[in-house]
Amino acid sequence: MAKDKQKKPQRPKAAPPRGFRDYFGPEVIHRQEMLRTITGIYHQYGFDPLESSAVETVEALGKFLPDVDRPNEGVFAWQDDDESWMALRYDLTAPLARVYAQHRNNLPTPYRRYAVGPVWRNEKPGPGRFRQFYQCDADTVGTPTVAADAEICAMLSDVLEGVGIQRGDYIVRVNNRKVLNGVMEVTGLLNPSDPTIRAHERGIVLRAIDKLDRLGESGVRALLGEGRKDVSGDFTKGAGLGDEQTDIVMGFVSALRDSNAATCARLGELVGGSAVGAKGVQELEQIAEMVEAQGYGPDRALIDPSVVRGLGYYTGPVYEAELTFEVLDEKGRPRQFGSVAGGGRYDDLVKRFTGQEVPATGVSIGVDRLLAALDNRLTRADEVAGPVIVTVMDRDRMADYQTIVAELRNAGIRAEVYLGNPKNFGNQLKYADTRNSPIAIIEGAQEKENGIVQIKDLALGARLAQEITSNEEWKQNAAQFEVSRADLVSEVRELLARSK
Amino acid sequence: MAKDKQKKPQRPKAAPPRGFRDYFGPEVIHRQEMLRTITGIYHQYGFDPLESSAVETVEALGKFLPDVDRPNEGVFAWQDDDESWMALRYDLTAPLARVYAQHRNNLPTPYRRYAVGPVWRNEKPGPGRFRQFYQCDADTVGTPTVAADAEICAMLSDVLEGVGIQRGDYIVRVNNRKVLNGVMEVTGLLNPSDPTIRAHERGIVLRAIDKLDRLGESGVRALLGEGRKDVSGDFTKGAGLGDEQTDIVMGFVSALRDSNAATCARLGELVGGSAVGAKGVQELEQIAEMVEAQGYGPDRALIDPSVVRGLGYYTGPVYEAELTFEVLDEKGRPRQFGSVAGGGRYDDLVKRFTGQEVPATGVSIGVDRLLAALDNRLTRADEVAGPVIVTVMDRDRMADYQTIVAELRNAGIRAEVYLGNPKNFGNQLKYADTRNSPIAIIEGAQEKENGIVQIKDLALGARLAQEITSNEEWKQNAAQFEVSRADLVSEVRELLARSK
Repeated sequence: MAKDKQKKPQRPKAAPPRGFRDYFGPEVIHRQEMLRTITGIYHQYGFDPLESSAVETVEALGKFLPDVDRPNEGVFAWQDDDESWMALRYDLTAPLARVYAQHRNNLPTPYRRYAVGPVWRNEKPGPGRFRQFYQCDADTVGTPTVAADAEICAMLSDVLEGVGIQRGDYIVRVNNRKVLNGVMEVTGLLNPSDPTIRAHERGIVLRAIDKLDRLGESGVRALLGEGRKDVSGDFTKGAGLGDEQTDIVMGFVSALRDSNAATCARLGELVGGSAVGAKGVQELEQIAEMVEAQGYGPDRALIDPSVVRGLGYYTGPVYEAELTFEVLDEKGRPRQFGSVAGGGRYDDLVKRFTGQEVPATGVSIGVDRLLAALDNRLTRADEVAGPVIVTVMDRDRMADYQTIVAELRNAGIRAEVYLGNPKNFGNQLKYADTRNSPIAIIEGAQEKENGIVQIKDLALGARLAQEITSNEEWKQNAAQFEVSRADLVSEVRELLARSK
Repeated sequence: MAKDKQKKPQRPKAAPPRGFRDYFGPEVIHRQEMLRTITGIYHQYGFDPLESSAVETVEALGKFLPDVDRPNEGVFAWQDDDESWMALRYDLTAPLARVYAQHRNNLPTPYRRYAVGPVWRNEKPGPGRFRQFYQCDADTVGTPTVAADAEICAMLSDVLEGVGIQRGDYIVRVNNRKVLNGVMEVTGLLNPSDPTIRAHERGIVLRAIDKLDRLGESGVRALLGEGRKDVSGDFTKGAGLGDEQTDIVMGFVSALRDSNAATCARLGELVGGSAVGAKGVQELEQIAEMVEAQGYGPDRALIDPSVVRGLGYYTGPVYEAELTFEVLDEKGRPRQFGSVAGGGRYDDLVKRFTGQEVPATGVSIGVDRLLAALDNRLTRADEVAGPVIVTVMDRDRMADYQTIVAELRNAGIRAEVYLGNPKNFGNQLKYADTRNSPIAIIEGAQEKENGIVQIKDLALGARLAQEITSNEEWKQNAAQFEVSRADLVSEVRELLARSK
């Protein structure tokens, strides 16, 4: 018999699972501030917040992820103890459809709602590609009017400017799936009397166009035709279109003209006799007219047929917000920052539950990408200020120091007492430095007796430390001064105001 | 051969999984406001935000849930595609221990952090008992000083008053596990030279005391002795203490005296010659002294030996915030609202990862319970205002109506255009009612021609509708008046200010 081996208990690894990460101090604060701005604008537009559960039944979530070919469909799923399957939401749209279907009798019609929170994707993590990330959505459920789509495009524009993207640095591109369907009809890929025919090929066309940015025209042409071999040698089967059909589709993709009106006119030619295509063009004309009337010219909201969005569930207008300024990619080459938000009309999501078509349209903002864009674009004037540190000179008088911080806090000043080992005063100042503290307060036994405290201006100290002078003592002392204990709060407040 | 039965595709059920729920409009807004207040106070105290991933490895989470007897340990867990197990966090403390162990070289010492977010428990759902709920924690990691514990007790008191709980309606009770350990030593349940002996019985004692509220003294006595049969007939095995030992433990639980000093003196008698017990009493004395010096008297922070907290990992001071006002329970009987927050010192959680002891202490606020308390306590003056509704009299002039809402929004007024079917004007007003709108704007063809708009004061209209008069026409008209189109924004602003 084998002897039981007594194993030393192994320590758990201090790391999150693959593809997950943590966010610290300023990262959390900046995101919160941005989300507060965005949801504030959503709210101004009349949208109400909704926070649905992070966990949904697998059947309610459905299969709407763009990456339809993955075996586990991109979600984190597990079985409940009654054997039913549940999963973490992968976006905020599928839960909205479920919530609306469930509560529609108690919700206003139309229902404008916004939502913000993390979503989870069971995907292969990569650099900058995480399996948990934030979305911030706004949707209007229950109305077919394209005024709802126009409103969301205008709102998206307001949001981007609200968070600090300059006009001219972004563009909201608008297209319409109905126009694409019209083009598909012209090429023979869509038979309006039986849409199930060649649905698979249409999906390939859709995803091919969506990759125009990345693959260029020749790559898309290959995918529209026989197929495409990528650099790794993998072959992706194409939609099998002939040259003439491919030309029509590529004509659609490149139908952008000098004005929204000219673009719509060109699209009208392309969809020829297709009824759905003509309807799509008319909707684009209406959207263009409405946003332009409100002052959102083509420099902000632009009819652009090259935008199709990868998701299969869109049924009408689609839109995408791109940041147009250049950044350097990982290889140091300049490229446009690209997409930070997108959405469109989806009239069938609620129908899955209720059997009745419920028209809906909405946008999702990629919060982390937009934050990255702002980090890239701005020099942050609003660095998060550290607290005033009250140092500990005499560990038996902790209550005195706590009283000082309480006074400061009651005056609205962020402050804390040093709680590490107070023995080494240098360590206390090092700690203040780590915390980005503007000021340290010192009250030794002598000061206590004399009714005074020392105020150390750490910001000034840091600046003086840069200066070239042989008078080290002066440097040490210039940034420190004593005040009456009674004046402490007002002196600190004044110093903070001055250093702003 | 059995014939394949062609099944009609089944519709998914529009409901979240068992034990999950959604939060709408005002619920989300009120929670956001409360969390903003709480985290604002945490921030003032020098705590920095941390947002860790919602998903952790199962090994990092460990087994620290109070309900140690459940087979699945109370977490939602699943396997990643590399077979490793991951799980949704069940609290915010276990992730903090992991994060601190991982990043300790880049974090200040001590590290004060706050965190807010949902946590998940794989428990049997019940009325008001959900499997996803919010916590809002503050912890200080890396310092053994009880000044850190005192700070958290004071902060907890500030937080409760900050969110609107009146002084006198809450109490922060403080105890110390070291004192309990001293009592255990006196009763022979703890041998300081080998703490593994009788650890199981000590766990039973701990959980028995924690149930004092629910079971009363006799119930706890039964659990300390042979065991207890509950109303359903289920028998829970007790700790097996003799009568004398039980008397000592019950003496500890009821050691509360008139003042913190008297309570500490009584505890000193009970722990007799136990070194750890004496240390615990000394720590309680220090905490009492510090919070009292800052003005947090025993009406706010009270040394109370009946509080032990159920969690096994606490090693020193423990604290619990209770709301003391009465509410009616589900059977209509008055009872105290009870606990809304709790915490304590845990010096071993980080050690699991690093092998080195890292002292830490912190508090967790049960956000949903505190919200429920506020709902119960306050008449909400701050109802969430609905948007101004711009009605649609002529569907071809949608751009005009959108221009009106844009003007209102630019003036900081929440406003939206009606996007439902505009045919029936009554439906538009019903919608405004659902939305809790204060004002509706009307601009028909005639008004447009004359350069005016109608303003309908919906709040006044609702009040007038209550009044008894036969003059229905007067009622209809009194709440509506016309203004010049140019004055629209200023008139709406004035009306909103007046109705506040």
